[in-house]
Amino acid sequence: MRASLAPRPTPGSRDRTILLLPPGFLSEIAALVDQELGHLLPAESVDPARLHSAMRYSSFAGGKRIRPVLIVLGGEACGGKRQDLLAPAAAMEMIHCFSLIHDDLPALDNDDLRRGQPSLHRQFDEATAILAGDALLNLALELLALTPESATAEARNANVVSAARAVGTFGMIGGQMADLLGEKVGPLAPEEAATLLESIHRRKTGALLEASLTIGGRCAGASSVKLDALSRLGQSLGLLFQIRDDILDIEGDPEKIGKTAGKDIEAAKLTYPSLFGIEGSKQRLKQEAADSRQSILELEPSLAQDSLLELVRFLEDRDH
Amino acid sequence: MRASLAPRPTPGSRDRTILLLPPGFLSEIAALVDQELGHLLPAESVDPARLHSAMRYSSFAGGKRIRPVLIVLGGEACGGKRQDLLAPAAAMEMIHCFSLIHDDLPALDNDDLRRGQPSLHRQFDEATAILAGDALLNLALELLALTPESATAEARNANVVSAARAVGTFGMIGGQMADLLGEKVGPLAPEEAATLLESIHRRKTGALLEASLTIGGRCAGASSVKLDALSRLGQSLGLLFQIRDDILDIEGDPEKIGKTAGKDIEAAKLTYPSLFGIEGSKQRLKQEAADSRQSILELEPSLAQDSLLELVRFLEDRDH
Repeated sequence: MRASLAPRPTPGSRDRTILLLPPGFLSEIAALVDQELGHLLPAESVDPARLHSAMRYSSFAGGKRIRPVLIVLGGEACGGKRQDLLAPAAAMEMIHCFSLIHDDLPALDNDDLRRGQPSLHRQFDEATAILAGDALLNLALELLALTPESATAEARNANVVSAARAVGTFGMIGGQMADLLGEKVGPLAPEEAATLLESIHRRKTGALLEASLTIGGRCAGASSVKLDALSRLGQSLGLLFQIRDDILDIEGDPEKIGKTAGKDIEAAKLTYPSLFGIEGSKQRLKQEAADSRQSILELEPSLAQDSLLELVRFLEDRDH
Repeated sequence: MRASLAPRPTPGSRDRTILLLPPGFLSEIAALVDQELGHLLPAESVDPARLHSAMRYSSFAGGKRIRPVLIVLGGEACGGKRQDLLAPAAAMEMIHCFSLIHDDLPALDNDDLRRGQPSLHRQFDEATAILAGDALLNLALELLALTPESATAEARNANVVSAARAVGTFGMIGGQMADLLGEKVGPLAPEEAATLLESIHRRKTGALLEASLTIGGRCAGASSVKLDALSRLGQSLGLLFQIRDDILDIEGDPEKIGKTAGKDIEAAKLTYPSLFGIEGSKQRLKQEAADSRQSILELEPSLAQDSLLELVRFLEDRDH
């Protein structure tokens, strides 16, 4: 099961997912980001070894590396060099891992599995998981302040601020909190529910994807016009990603998505299908994909631009 | 009980602690930092209100504001203006609050009381406490990237890095992890235990005090010679602070220290008195105070220098 979730497809998963194979640049960039994570995370042998092992366990537990890929492609679509984009890309993946570790905790989503493997607090313990999450967020912001050396100190400063706002109470953490509270409030009127749902996902997923693209752009010294296009692209990609996730929870193959299907329905969670039905959700998915393409076309023609277009198609169709 | 822990002494606490009254500049700076925290933290009414309320609950639960005071005095002892030092000072207090919130969680120290009041997860709930801690760390690093505007982007970047290293796996979080692991290992040889104890406290307390002083210095454009003196001062102040804490756990008045005395002994925790006895611990306290004064005298003669000397005397003698 793990193989089909890993960035580089194995022969086994290739057979099963032949039509939905991720574009080649995804695994190529993912491999470089993995290498960079290997350099930047303290070694497992370094004291406190248990904490560093936990940070590595979560960072190398698979995953599509979408956020790092967006930093790299966003930067390259503004003339940046891949080598300069890898450390910020790894930092953004650390932020993503931090959020997964804390979200999985018993007090929050209480998930025993993550990407088909024991979640961090199940594999280690709760105290280690809390501290490892803290440490990953903290290290990520440190790295954004330090890298790339080729960027101006002003650009790196803006990147720290951009990431922190995407993470903070008006971003991902705020979305997670609203999500927790939303699960506890009673039934809402449909339009209230739709507004709440969109606002939660813009914060929970969209903010970080948007930050990834603009951080990549800033590393490459992008103009404010380009940064604006990257920002809008991030917003529509975020919704695209989430709608597809919600659809997969209903229609997905549990073996491919790495978790029990129907978990959202069981939890009576606010999702796109629960509000708009499967067909309505698929319509919305198409619209967000179209908006994404529109923003990408405002960037300069380049290999990275082609890759971003291909990424949209993949995210729209993915089966895991 | 709360009054004696608040930064500004009330008539009640003044009567009881007349000989150990904190120096006036402490409450003066603490009041300004409180005001700054009030501006910088999102209002309780802002969505997600529960999260913002939790962040404010912890930030205004009393406390001596030692770290912000060190930023202000460290900066002023290098020619900085107080007005420029308050936002970074508030940021450093947010980092301190983050660490207290997560340390108090059931999976870590499992403390129901903090400064004589219910700890955050008892007053709200565990999920909110985890997210509020995350949000405070994150907002703090954002603020260090943004403020003061009078500092160079390079200095603000260095401050983000300095704070993040003090927080990270080689700093506070690493010390907390070693502390958790230390409580689980069997008895150590005395010299091993002493090394472990010092290493834990340098990381748990010293790193953040050291970062506070150097961040203040950097905000003021301090020379590397001054930054070095501030750095050494932070290290000895950290040990001074911790040794006094350990002594208070045994000799302190529970009503003044705001927690049950003897809690460390009950938990068979590694402390200075458990290793060196009360008298041995008091000797070490004196030595760290002397080292602190030495470093302070390397700074420029100023009102801030006098205040730092007064602070050492207060930390050495404090009864809470």
